[in-house]
Amino acid sequence: MGPGPSDVYPQVLEAMSRPTIGHLDPAFVSFMDELNELLRYALQTENTVTLPISAPGSAGMECCLVNLLEPGDRCVVAINGVFGGRMAEIVRRCEAHPVVVEFEWGKPVDPNKVEEVLKANPDAVALAFVHAETSTGVRSDVSSLCRLASEHDCLSIVDAVTSLGGIELCMDDWGVDAIYSGTQKCLSAPPGLSPVSFNATAMAKLNARSAPPQSWFLDMNLLTGYWGPGAKRAYHHTAPINTLYALHEALQILKQEGLENAWKRHADTHQQLREGLEAMGLEFYVEPADRLPQLNSVIVPPGIDEAGVRSFLLEQFNLEIGAGLGPLAGKIWRIGLMGASCTQRHVSLCLQGLSTALAETP
Amino acid sequence: MGPGPSDVYPQVLEAMSRPTIGHLDPAFVSFMDELNELLRYALQTENTVTLPISAPGSAGMECCLVNLLEPGDRCVVAINGVFGGRMAEIVRRCEAHPVVVEFEWGKPVDPNKVEEVLKANPDAVALAFVHAETSTGVRSDVSSLCRLASEHDCLSIVDAVTSLGGIELCMDDWGVDAIYSGTQKCLSAPPGLSPVSFNATAMAKLNARSAPPQSWFLDMNLLTGYWGPGAKRAYHHTAPINTLYALHEALQILKQEGLENAWKRHADTHQQLREGLEAMGLEFYVEPADRLPQLNSVIVPPGIDEAGVRSFLLEQFNLEIGAGLGPLAGKIWRIGLMGASCTQRHVSLCLQGLSTALAETP
Repeated sequence: MGPGPSDVYPQVLEAMSRPTIGHLDPAFVSFMDELNELLRYALQTENTVTLPISAPGSAGMECCLVNLLEPGDRCVVAINGVFGGRMAEIVRRCEAHPVVVEFEWGKPVDPNKVEEVLKANPDAVALAFVHAETSTGVRSDVSSLCRLASEHDCLSIVDAVTSLGGIELCMDDWGVDAIYSGTQKCLSAPPGLSPVSFNATAMAKLNARSAPPQSWFLDMNLLTGYWGPGAKRAYHHTAPINTLYALHEALQILKQEGLENAWKRHADTHQQLREGLEAMGLEFYVEPADRLPQLNSVIVPPGIDEAGVRSFLLEQFNLEIGAGLGPLAGKIWRIGLMGASCTQRHVSLCLQGLSTALAETP
Repeated sequence: MGPGPSDVYPQVLEAMSRPTIGHLDPAFVSFMDELNELLRYALQTENTVTLPISAPGSAGMECCLVNLLEPGDRCVVAINGVFGGRMAEIVRRCEAHPVVVEFEWGKPVDPNKVEEVLKANPDAVALAFVHAETSTGVRSDVSSLCRLASEHDCLSIVDAVTSLGGIELCMDDWGVDAIYSGTQKCLSAPPGLSPVSFNATAMAKLNARSAPPQSWFLDMNLLTGYWGPGAKRAYHHTAPINTLYALHEALQILKQEGLENAWKRHADTHQQLREGLEAMGLEFYVEPADRLPQLNSVIVPPGIDEAGVRSFLLEQFNLEIGAGLGPLAGKIWRIGLMGASCTQRHVSLCLQGLSTALAETP
């Protein structure tokens, strides 16, 4: 119950342990088509370029930025936690220029402030921001921000690592141009893959480049040669077969539950956790309207040994919760309710563990 | 029995399906120390910077090149197959200059020719080449090439994707400065990770850079903050926990067998395959002295439908063998004898399948 990896469904672990077959085997190739279709459902998109990058979410972030930015490009980056900061760092490594808009950690990205910055930077080509900031537990308004990006002729690049499968996310309806996510949060597959999707606008920007992206491994034009659409299944790199089995199974579980049901389960379970924590006198770090149900930032009460409580939970309850990062280190705990870890049983264990820890640790 | 992924040991698949724990869990942290030590054994190195990149072998290649080359650097790249060509392409994407030395596909890298090129390019900072070319089945002389690199003040960067665990490889004794490998060849773990090791000379080159590497995900200084040595286990990205379980188990199997025994098993099993193929009148593409035991390039006899034979084997014998790539497409088959797929049983199945296929396909 930390910020991820979440518990992995037993069926997903079983799928992962099936015999490895070749990445060009005809049976694997039809499996890839199914996987892409399941990803399109999860992301609510019709984009043909929708595929899993063969590396964790941070590589998905790098994939979006290295393909869609050219040296000298100006990219507005909203920062309200660790992952916005990481985006700005990668923009710099692309020899592009991040125009940073900072927000207090624990607050959402403010569309009004972003609009001012877009107006002041008419040559900006992209707006990048995080939907669900794992470092703080804050949700930002993707739909409004993408509309602003579009009005200012900017591509929208959205980090959906922690949001996918946990809260509403409608890539096409919201006008997202490029998105990346992870598998080890609300999808409850093991870490190691990053679903990525580009719409036609993003692909047009990629195909108008004057030079190929700086990364060969993450070059989207080479990746689509293997992953489709209508691909020749041209060998690029050896796909991580077993991890893909796991993602496929996790996405099938999500589809069986139904996206809306999964979102509702996260909201309802968060409500249970919230009531329990508040009954113990604990407070949330984030305002109610901005809270992520799947990542709960809880203020460490005065006089409590923050790390001691986490160690106690791990040792006595076999339960992991997360620490604060950056300016929030020592000030909050981060309690995940993600995917398979988002059940009433998890809430009960966490509340029992925390109340015991608070009574027994110095 | 293609060019990889090879069969994965059942124990490795079982390890992979163990419950996912956190990438900062104390139990996982001690597991990481064990894994690094097992990698040092497999690579025969004492390098403290020895760790698995969280992505397939091609990302390991990119990791070595983006960390060790700066824009404007000149890097001699020996090309005798697909993977040398890929190195040159990545060198270009680093804004460095590849000095390409080409060899006929199916021939090893000739140290004499490389020496001439090193002499003619006194400002070259690195020599990059492939130990075991998976596209042709050829072994090159790592020890001699690394000595030449050292004599010309060049870093040696070695692709050991297909060699590791299958043929002799002694990173320290041979003076290799930087190496990358894969897990899905002679280690018989699933694809998805790339073991990488840098010696002190390579780390000095990295630390003398005027700007950080273009890739954040593959930045070795950030990776060592998480992987050690003596690391604070600082969060960089979420490690692919289950795939790491699998690699750990595969390396333990290798250590139990013993490296020298594994090399001998590959050599002996290759000999059996060779005798069987020659008895059928089939010929090898590569000269005996240069052949890899783990990757056997066999000439398609005149009048035989190359792809038809592969389809027949897959459908009738549930057996995959590889096609030729590039200039060798349609001209050779590539038969892998790697790790768990390197047994007498595999040889028998392959010989039986091939003789049936040659008799029955048009």
